[in-house]
Amino acid sequence: MSASTQYTLKLVIQYDGTRFVGWQRQANGMSVQALLEEALHTITREQVHVEASGRTDAGVHAWGQVASVKLSKRVVPIRLRLSLNALLPEDVAVLSVEIVDDGFHARKSAKSKRYRYTIVNDHARHPLLRRTSFHYAQKLDVAAMQRAARALVGKHDFAAFVKETPRKRNCVRTILSASVTKNGVVLHVDVTGTGFLYNMVRIITGTLIEVGLGRRPESCIADLLQGAPREAAGFTVPPHGLALVEVNYSSSEVHDLPRTPPESEDSA
Amino acid sequence: MSASTQYTLKLVIQYDGTRFVGWQRQANGMSVQALLEEALHTITREQVHVEASGRTDAGVHAWGQVASVKLSKRVVPIRLRLSLNALLPEDVAVLSVEIVDDGFHARKSAKSKRYRYTIVNDHARHPLLRRTSFHYAQKLDVAAMQRAARALVGKHDFAAFVKETPRKRNCVRTILSASVTKNGVVLHVDVTGTGFLYNMVRIITGTLIEVGLGRRPESCIADLLQGAPREAAGFTVPPHGLALVEVNYSSSEVHDLPRTPPESEDSA
Repeated sequence: MSASTQYTLKLVIQYDGTRFVGWQRQANGMSVQALLEEALHTITREQVHVEASGRTDAGVHAWGQVASVKLSKRVVPIRLRLSLNALLPEDVAVLSVEIVDDGFHARKSAKSKRYRYTIVNDHARHPLLRRTSFHYAQKLDVAAMQRAARALVGKHDFAAFVKETPRKRNCVRTILSASVTKNGVVLHVDVTGTGFLYNMVRIITGTLIEVGLGRRPESCIADLLQGAPREAAGFTVPPHGLALVEVNYSSSEVHDLPRTPPESEDSA
Repeated sequence: MSASTQYTLKLVIQYDGTRFVGWQRQANGMSVQALLEEALHTITREQVHVEASGRTDAGVHAWGQVASVKLSKRVVPIRLRLSLNALLPEDVAVLSVEIVDDGFHARKSAKSKRYRYTIVNDHARHPLLRRTSFHYAQKLDVAAMQRAARALVGKHDFAAFVKETPRKRNCVRTILSASVTKNGVVLHVDVTGTGFLYNMVRIITGTLIEVGLGRRPESCIADLLQGAPREAAGFTVPPHGLALVEVNYSSSEVHDLPRTPPESEDSA
């Protein structure tokens, strides 16, 4: 009996993370991975394992999560995308399906990922942005946050920016770009890197907020990157402001500037 | 007994229209007006009537609806805003409260309003945009839509762009600017005018979509503005893609270009 031929598919997936326990299948609630694997099983009758570029936590969104899956029967990508989107609930959709080289692996082949944390910095909360942003009412000094964020770029020990877990790991990671931008009352913290630690972008953002309040000096990020412990950094902002924006696979795709995103609107 | 002194307030209100029967109080469901009047009554113990710049239909959103209200006791605007936002549910918020001249009336004093209709023009639906945009999968020729939209500007008879109602009204309105812009898969139809008819922006958008499909010539808008009947224009797009963006009160605020809105993101 020879092993049957396998086809490797690359899926780009968007989801509103509000009601999920996260990307990964878990006993205590609905996950994006479980929904996708069930939909793929319904269509192909195969038991499949869907591998993502990385896990996203409960409540975290994805504009363009990437996943890979191996199927033993060949499929028509466009038809599979249509079938999947017909089966998936309104808060998950497959934006594209592609047949790729067998060596492709959503996590191992990824060259970099971009995360965006969105803050609404206004006295009042903004209902139309409530699901995808963190409302922070106290006035923030955005220029100070921008200057502080520059120190993140490069290869550093991010031990201060990782949630404490029982087993201690290597916390050295490489950040390709980091920026804080403001448009009206909306602030975006964009971080592109080759790898991320647990809660890393949320602790970076909380620390930058403390810089924006004047409670920490702008130089604090550089200081914290000298191997400081978790408790030396700022608070962890809530998950609903975070989104995985995109995953890049070819090194030529790695860029310093985020791609122009579509506009939203807010009169304030 | 002399009438007590009255204070006029201007409120800027944002709401996610998804679960409302619209701005206006109605017997068949929850309205934004009823929520605001109840919250104001709870705080001031006065029976108040809140007047908006205009009604928005069921499912339509507002980034900056404006309302006026008269109170017999003087209030501290910032404190009233905080109290209102503490009482209002998460899908409605008061962005600002101002004491204004007694002559101010949210509807009668308005010089112009800007509406935005958002279309996601992609094969796949986009879950993170599903509440505030209309998913339209067939490819649209945006340049043709842009050229067609130019004919809307000026004083015209919009009888073709109004939902048929039993009593026939004067359908002459003035549009100050109209544009179709594209950013990735997101299209925005922005229309600024001194007054709008029932379903006007939604019928304009449906007609522009038919131009974008090549089913109608670009010149059709100009032709329809020669007093054509409703059935000569295009379909009515659904309400959840529509938002009242802003209301302008001083003539100096009337501008041809929409203000820069904050960014959103979408990797596709």
